[in-house]
This record gives sequence, structure tokens and C-alpha cells, in this order.
Amino acid sequence: MTQNYRLTLCYEGKRYHGWERKKNLDTVQGKVEDVLSRLCGTEVRVNGAGRTDAGVHARAMVASTRLDTDLTPPQLRDYLNRYLPEDICVTEVRPAAPRFHARLNAVGKTYRYSCWVGPGKPVFDRNTVQVLESAPDLARMCAAAALLTGEHDFRSFCGNPRMKKSTVRRVDAIDLSQEGSYLRFTVSGNGFLMHMVRILVGTLLEVGYGRLEPEAMPDILAAGQRSAAGPTAPARGLCLMEVRY
Amino acid sequence: MTQNYRLTLCYEGKRYHGWERKKNLDTVQGKVEDVLSRLCGTEVRVNGAGRTDAGVHARAMVASTRLDTDLTPPQLRDYLNRYLPEDICVTEVRPAAPRFHARLNAVGKTYRYSCWVGPGKPVFDRNTVQVLESAPDLARMCAAAALLTGEHDFRSFCGNPRMKKSTVRRVDAIDLSQEGSYLRFTVSGNGFLMHMVRILVGTLLEVGYGRLEPEAMPDILAAGQRSAAGPTAPARGLCLMEVRY
Repeated sequence: MTQNYRLTLCYEGKRYHGWERKKNLDTVQGKVEDVLSRLCGTEVRVNGAGRTDAGVHARAMVASTRLDTDLTPPQLRDYLNRYLPEDICVTEVRPAAPRFHARLNAVGKTYRYSCWVGPGKPVFDRNTVQVLESAPDLARMCAAAALLTGEHDFRSFCGNPRMKKSTVRRVDAIDLSQEGSYLRFTVSGNGFLMHMVRILVGTLLEVGYGRLEPEAMPDILAAGQRSAAGPTAPARGLCLMEVRY
Repeated sequence: MTQNYRLTLCYEGKRYHGWERKKNLDTVQGKVEDVLSRLCGTEVRVNGAGRTDAGVHARAMVASTRLDTDLTPPQLRDYLNRYLPEDICVTEVRPAAPRFHARLNAVGKTYRYSCWVGPGKPVFDRNTVQVLESAPDLARMCAAAALLTGEHDFRSFCGNPRMKKSTVRRVDAIDLSQEGSYLRFTVSGNGFLMHMVRILVGTLLEVGYGRLEPEAMPDILAAGQRSAAGPTAPARGLCLMEVRY
């Protein structure tokens, strides 16, 4: 008898070509499916709440999967952790309603982007933080962030130039905080386009360094062109923090 | 004109064969001396407050060195950080009195040993934490730690069987704390023998798992034999936190 499960995962993305299974490449989905397939003796597929890009991390990715196993949820979690590499951890396994689907049922997500503004360098978390050459202007970035919040067509912030579906998304909040040497962007919304958080951060940093004005944000949104926005911030600073249902 | 400097360094020890310079091996002292020698155009030697073993980390190692340079202390710090690898950071450079010597003037040190007791695994700090299979008994370990505190001959806790000099040291405090999945040992004293903190932790874990009694500590100290104490805990959990002058 198969049972539907909800898995919560934490991983450091550095060594992986993203979440999504890719032939002959190490991906997080691939690693999880391999362990579950060996456990069940059949090909197991896992549905993640979204794809994280190559090098992007997660503190709480959610995935759903149907399994035929005698193991209890805590036993399943321990089995997975024993056979998954040390940079992937399953923090929770619990039974889910038969129709629960981690991607289709998600109503919101929160990402955090972490930067280091010095002095020195982030020795112990260098894999999860982007090092900036100097400190950008926080007030300017906050002003720009406010203009990007809300429901907009985020086509200018989409990394996929051939995106056919709607590029309208609702960004509920872009919070900026500086604590010691860390500058963090926390972005919540109902869904995100390819590279969207990284382009939002890259654009805000341009504002922080004075190369773009906060007031330019509406025009950048209206342009509907990737070239109107700033660069894509590097993957290593990004982490999926929460998926809401 | 040479000036004496005091450097504070933070490093992840994973990739290094310890602090102390070794021919043809990557060491932290070697990396720092190489950068300073290139800057000054002469062979520069740096004195660390102590040797950390291969794989051991530091949040605040202190070193002293005499340099002939026109750079200001902040410029020196930035120069070092630019040319040192990303797992070594100089957090502070300041002028020191002519006779200041990082090792000879040190009067105390604090180390922290970090363990993970689960569930799951320490994905983001796996390089600096030892994973334990189960949670040891904290009360038993605290009782044993109290019996190891104070001035004792720590020969049983010395990793060097040919140690000729005095093995008497004063351990001021061994504090144990559990916070979430982390179990931490914080050990302060006036000086430490080779592997001493790791053998103290390895012995306390034996007590925590019921394989040794807390009351056995005085006998272990009195034995003056390495074989009387517990195993040497792995290097990856250990970090030098502070050097006092």
C-alpha cells in the first residue's frame, strides 16, 4: 500500500547542479530519489516545491513522494540521512494527505540572500555568503525594494528569455537587514521566476552602489526586458528558507 | 625600521596540516609567512600563540611578527586578506610593544569543542562539528569535568609520549552546554599539552556514554599514562576561541 509523504530537506547546494534531476549530474532530487529507489526496490520519484539553481542552498525545501514501505516516518528520515551525503539532510518526514503535492499546493516561499560587507572574510560560511567589495547604501536599497514589492509583471527579473507562461508574481516583502558584517535580503512571495530572487538582489545592489536610482524601479518593471534590470547575483548567497502551504 | 605587530587570525583548519610551518605542506603559519615575505621582500617569521593540530580551527589565534613596511595596520590586514586563501582571515593587525611575543606572553587560552547530537546532520557547519551517534549523559559529563578542573599533572591527557617538560597545567573551567542539536565543551586554562583538549573531550564522552565513571577521573590523572584516559576526539570539532595576555 503506498502512502504519500511530505519531506523537509536542508542542503548546501555547492556541490550540486541544482535540485532538479539531471542525467549524469549530481542533483539533490537525484540523490534523494536514488536512496528511496534503493529502499523500495522500484523507481521512486520525488516532487520538490520548486527547482533551486545550481549552487543554491535550502534550509527547508519541501518535497512529496509516494512510497510503499514498512518504515515509520522517523525511521524513513534516519534511513535517508544515513545514505544521503553529508551536505543533504532530511529534517522531517511526515505522512501527507493522498493528494498533497509539494509544488502544486505551495502558496508561498521565502528566500534569503546573504552578503558579507567586511572587514575580513566569512571564513566559516564562505560557501553560503557572497562577499561584497564595499558596503552598499541600505536606505537607497530599502527605497527601491519598496517599489518592487506587490503584484507586478516581473518579466524584467526573469532569467528565462523564452518564458511562455505568465510572469506576473506577487512579492509580499523584501526585507533588508544588516547585522555585523552580514547584509541579508529576505524575499517572500507567492512564487518566483527563474533567477528572480538573484536578479532582484543584483538590481538592489546596483541601487546600493549608486549605479541605479530607486525611482528607476517602476520603469525597469515596465520595460519587460531582462536587460533593463541589474545583474544576476551569484548563486552561493541564496537559500530557500520556507515553503508555505 | 621594523615594528612589532600583533595579528589576530580566524581560520578553518580542514585543508591545513595545522598551524605550524611544515616543509612542502599547507599550514596556516606557512600561508601567512609566505604573504608577508612577498610583501616585505625578505623572509618573514611569525610566532603563533600555540600550534593547532591538523584540521583544528581558530576564531582568534594570535601571532606576533616584526615587519619593515610603510603600510598602516588596517592596510596590512587588508593586504593579508587579499592574498590569503578564503579559509584564512586576519581579523585585526595592531602595533605591539617591541618585546611582545604571542606564545611567550600568553597567560591563558580558551578552546571550544562542538558536537552534533542530532537528529539529522549539521549540513552547513559539517566541517567544524563532530557528529555523535546518540546524545551522551550531560550530568555525568559535568560531574567528571568538575574533577578534571584545577591544577593537575595532565600527563594522561598528553598526546606526546616523549614529553620531557612539565605536564602540569591549570584548567580553569570545563563548561558543557547543549543548545538544540549542539553539544559544546568550552575549556579554559593556562596552557594545554599536545591533543589535551581532544583527549579531555574524548574521555568525557566515554563518561557520557557510561563506559567510564565520573569518579574514575582522579585515578586517570594519577596514572600518568596516556592509555588510562579516553580516545582523542577528532580534530574537526575543535576551535581555538581566545588567547589571553
